Amino acid sequence: MKENYQSGPQQRDTPRGSRPESPAKARSPDPLPSWHECSTKSAIRDFVADVTTGGGTGFVPPHERIAVFDNDGTLWSEQPFYFQGLFVFDRIHALAPGHPEWKDTQPFKAVLEIDMNALAASGLHGLLELVMATHAGMTTEEFERSVRDWLATARHPKFNRAYTDLVFQPMLELLAFLRANEFKTFIMSGGGIEFVRTFSEERYGIPPEQVVGSSIATKYEVRDGRPVLVREPRLDFINDHEGKPVGINKFIGRRPIAAFGNSDGDLQMLEWVTAGAGSRFGLIIHHDDAVREFAYDRASVAGRLDRGLDEAAGRGWTVLSMVRDWKVIYPFELEEGGDVNGRRRNQTARNQRGRNQT
Amino acid sequence: MKENYQSGPQQRDTPRGSRPESPAKARSPDPLPSWHECSTKSAIRDFVADVTTGGGTGFVPPHERIAVFDNDGTLWSEQPFYFQGLFVFDRIHALAPGHPEWKDTQPFKAVLEIDMNALAASGLHGLLELVMATHAGMTTEEFERSVRDWLATARHPKFNRAYTDLVFQPMLELLAFLRANEFKTFIMSGGGIEFVRTFSEERYGIPPEQVVGSSIATKYEVRDGRPVLVREPRLDFINDHEGKPVGINKFIGRRPIAAFGNSDGDLQMLEWVTAGAGSRFGLIIHHDDAVREFAYDRASVAGRLDRGLDEAAGRGWTVLSMVRDWKVIYPFELEEGGDVNGRRRNQTARNQRGRNQT
Repeated sequence: MKENYQSGPQQRDTPRGSRPESPAKARSPDPLPSWHECSTKSAIRDFVADVTTGGGTGFVPPHERIAVFDNDGTLWSEQPFYFQGLFVFDRIHALAPGHPEWKDTQPFKAVLEIDMNALAASGLHGLLELVMATHAGMTTEEFERSVRDWLATARHPKFNRAYTDLVFQPMLELLAFLRANEFKTFIMSGGGIEFVRTFSEERYGIPPEQVVGSSIATKYEVRDGRPVLVREPRLDFINDHEGKPVGINKFIGRRPIAAFGNSDGDLQMLEWVTAGAGSRFGLIIHHDDAVREFAYDRASVAGRLDRGLDEAAGRGWTVLSMVRDWKVIYPFELEEGGDVNGRRRNQTARNQRGRNQT
Repeated sequence: MKENYQSGPQQRDTPRGSRPESPAKARSPDPLPSWHECSTKSAIRDFVADVTTGGGTGFVPPHERIAVFDNDGTLWSEQPFYFQGLFVFDRIHALAPGHPEWKDTQPFKAVLEIDMNALAASGLHGLLELVMATHAGMTTEEFERSVRDWLATARHPKFNRAYTDLVFQPMLELLAFLRANEFKTFIMSGGGIEFVRTFSEERYGIPPEQVVGSSIATKYEVRDGRPVLVREPRLDFINDHEGKPVGINKFIGRRPIAAFGNSDGDLQMLEWVTAGAGSRFGLIIHHDDAVREFAYDRASVAGRLDRGLDEAAGRGWTVLSMVRDWKVIYPFELEEGGDVNGRRRNQTARNQRGRNQT
């Protein structure tokens, strides 16, 4: 895979798709340096050119330039299991000393004994019990602290890196490119809204008010004269599958013009977004890079992609291949392996988190 | 009341509170021309100066400058009853020919016969039945159209004006002033989120993704190959009283630094916002202008303000008097009565809806 990554500089001056560009534009720095010059990159650039070209048939005014991104598997990795799931398991271990009864109670026993069969046997109900035990019964501030502490210390089993190191460098560039073209970028995650919000602003440049996710109920209370929001062991909203268009309508209130996902949980979001009138863009990331990341699709528990692979072409959605389309997967590869297209790492980092966080 | 309104120009060069201003600043056009030079206006300007002065103790970085506004009674009028309630009654009349059974069924009978006693007797349950009959059982697009049609044709009983004419000119100026100082402005309404979204962008410059309100559930369906969101007769969320801090946490995900309301339904929002660390601002509008608008507080059904009047001073919240603080209530007074401070109506309108809709 290393060839792909290192082949970048040579490709820099090759044609960028069929769209004619002005000489000035062609000389400007590539906003997507970690992307190979392939049809996926061309499709993205053509779409952005279409919606931003005043007077063109595809023009979309800035306030309607909304782009939605799934998080797990789209903006960061999700193997060997959703990172929030790994947080749950770690929290169960951390909280176990205060819950001696967990040693003999499923599904807690299964987690403590790392018995995946027993865990699977506990089903969705068991999973919810684990989520409530680790996500409810505390204030929003206490929960946020437990997530931040975990993100600061936990390490990914394959890469021995913080989970927030495992965001996708090409997607950071894409977010910045869209924002530079007056898009407002939103996360539409099946994961927990308050989990994702703890790192979305720092890592993606996406402020909390542009993060949508699944949630449990919270309750307002005044404790000793100090108002708090208490997280309750009760589901509020599942932002996945059919829930994603519902979440878009609830939180954004207008139909986005671009959607980026990677699993069948994103199908309805892609369908809803691309069924709108005018310029539309839908993209599915196919995780096919076992060396640099993970290769999985139809049979995976986390991020299963089955219908999406079959239906993408007929629906006009772009399928991205990580092997073919991305020179770099993670930002840390730039530190280790040098620069892509001669850019300095610091400049790229600055691009990711511009002042314009929209 | 007319004296107040017309006394504006003479007051223009009086001191603006205790904050010393540079000569350049003092000469720049007043961003709040419909506000009298009173302690309320000074308090607003002092707060904004505090949070925007780099290096000052009260400085707040732009991405944390979130301001939340109640809608009914804060950004537009709410008498003789919440405008969305009047929409419900009008819709019941409009839909009645298709529902002959309503003639003999409460609470519909009460609405059709304009029998307010029978309506009151039907209680909260009756009100919910009316809401569901007019707000559910159609797609989100169909509902939006019914609201837009009503707003375009219905007239307010006192002013014989479109309801969207009855927004508060001083608040439009305040929204624009805050946005010019890099605030992001949100609506936190007890009213229906999709009702308010139909006019918030055009009227307030607040895009749909920055409108939070009460909601009913929606369901994603594909009908004849076309995806739709269907509104279901089931409450999803009540964004009022204790619900407002919950809604802030859910939709915004960080604590605002300024809150503007007018009724006891805004108390918890004000409490939550002003309990945060650092610079904070809370304001309650007191409707005390029976001539130019309506005078009501402790005994009103719509927009009841009772505890708020008693507790504001102790909590450090500013209480705004419409009689004392506002030269103009509605934008149409500028057309009719001439200019405030020599400004032309068109310039003011342009200020209200700047390109920066944040």
